[in-house]
Amino acid sequence: MNLDCCFTHQSAADFLNPEALGKKTVIIIDVLRATSSITTALNNGAVEVLAVKSIEDALRLKKALPEALLVGERNGDIIPGFELGNSPLEFSREKVLNKKIIFCTTNGTAAIELAAGAGAKPWIGAIINAPAVAEKAAAEEVSDLLLLCAGTNGKISLDDILGAGSIIRHILDTGQRPKLSDAALISLKLYNFYRENLLEGLQTAFHGNKLKICGRGEDLIYCSKEGLIPRVPVFNKGRIII
Amino acid sequence: MNLDCCFTHQSAADFLNPEALGKKTVIIIDVLRATSSITTALNNGAVEVLAVKSIEDALRLKKALPEALLVGERNGDIIPGFELGNSPLEFSREKVLNKKIIFCTTNGTAAIELAAGAGAKPWIGAIINAPAVAEKAAAEEVSDLLLLCAGTNGKISLDDILGAGSIIRHILDTGQRPKLSDAALISLKLYNFYRENLLEGLQTAFHGNKLKICGRGEDLIYCSKEGLIPRVPVFNKGRIII
Repeated sequence: MNLDCCFTHQSAADFLNPEALGKKTVIIIDVLRATSSITTALNNGAVEVLAVKSIEDALRLKKALPEALLVGERNGDIIPGFELGNSPLEFSREKVLNKKIIFCTTNGTAAIELAAGAGAKPWIGAIINAPAVAEKAAAEEVSDLLLLCAGTNGKISLDDILGAGSIIRHILDTGQRPKLSDAALISLKLYNFYRENLLEGLQTAFHGNKLKICGRGEDLIYCSKEGLIPRVPVFNKGRIII
Repeated sequence: MNLDCCFTHQSAADFLNPEALGKKTVIIIDVLRATSSITTALNNGAVEVLAVKSIEDALRLKKALPEALLVGERNGDIIPGFELGNSPLEFSREKVLNKKIIFCTTNGTAAIELAAGAGAKPWIGAIINAPAVAEKAAAEEVSDLLLLCAGTNGKISLDDILGAGSIIRHILDTGQRPKLSDAALISLKLYNFYRENLLEGLQTAFHGNKLKICGRGEDLIYCSKEGLIPRVPVFNKGRIII
């Protein structure tokens, strides 16, 4: 298995042409908080998640699917008029069971669109489902794996790197011996450093610290719970399902 | 001091507009081997280094400056017809004293061009001059420092990250307490991990391993000698001087 990692979706767009990207198994990672929230919502019984980038597209989709939950954030806050923000703690079973979700975030959605646009059927990864992602990659004998970190507005986010490192660590634990790129190796080393206290790692991250200051400390605790959810959402034909 | 780090020059181009980039103090890092070689050549008495990206530009410049040394590599090998390749061990005092050098490499030069094009006057950093870079940054009371890693063909290079981490470590050692971005923090953690054996870090890097296999192991030993050269080359008006 070749195992590579991109630290921002912009950098993936730079050095991978769509043909190369489309041939890889791509895992989208946006630990704080898009991929943690999507995984939680689907695990709690949501039917599907429709990820869209712009508020306009989200509102248009809501008109076509009035029964769907309208969910999204800008700069960490719920979009005015939307039903839920981007905190995974909001996606309880009572709120999402049997619901379709229109999910409007910035960085995570851009990463999904990049991979999907290249023909990949990306998986959704986070710290909370890292062991499941690793087991799926091993079980499916993936030959070319790309961990695509969303990043934050073009900048590298430590929280995503820890998510990538957690997946790599668990792939190694399955007995696989993947060929690691420098970026994958860096993710693994960072993860090893924070392994005993992933919450501290998330709090140290610029974006994590910002969320903590804004009173979202509980989100960090939740997103650091490695292996909480034993399932892997997958994107296909515009929808994310589990 | 704000201290940020870009892991490839492409990613810097993505998230920094030229105006923002031009206001920063930018340090170009291409440990294997462009910035190690440039620093060595100037320390050994070369008058100036003229960094150019394309072979065509290098040959044109050589016509105008026939006395200059024509130096460059493609994929690690000397360009046919050029006088020296990109091994820092080639830039001995006998070969470079009082010479102008036309220096044609891919990644390092692209990073220099990006910064210079934005109006910055980038410094040249590597592991071999990291303490000097740190002291210069502290002495000049730099407020906004960007460590711009060249990367390798759009991909992250562990060797550059270790160069960045070495500079950050030495800035901390001057007593400065810079505000580290996530990328800067990641560089520092990686450096701390390999601190006692930077050579091992360089050998582990994909590009370093490739050089080693090609018989360039001595270059890695040289490029890992932290603080060997107590000087910092600076780019200004098309020329790098020390």
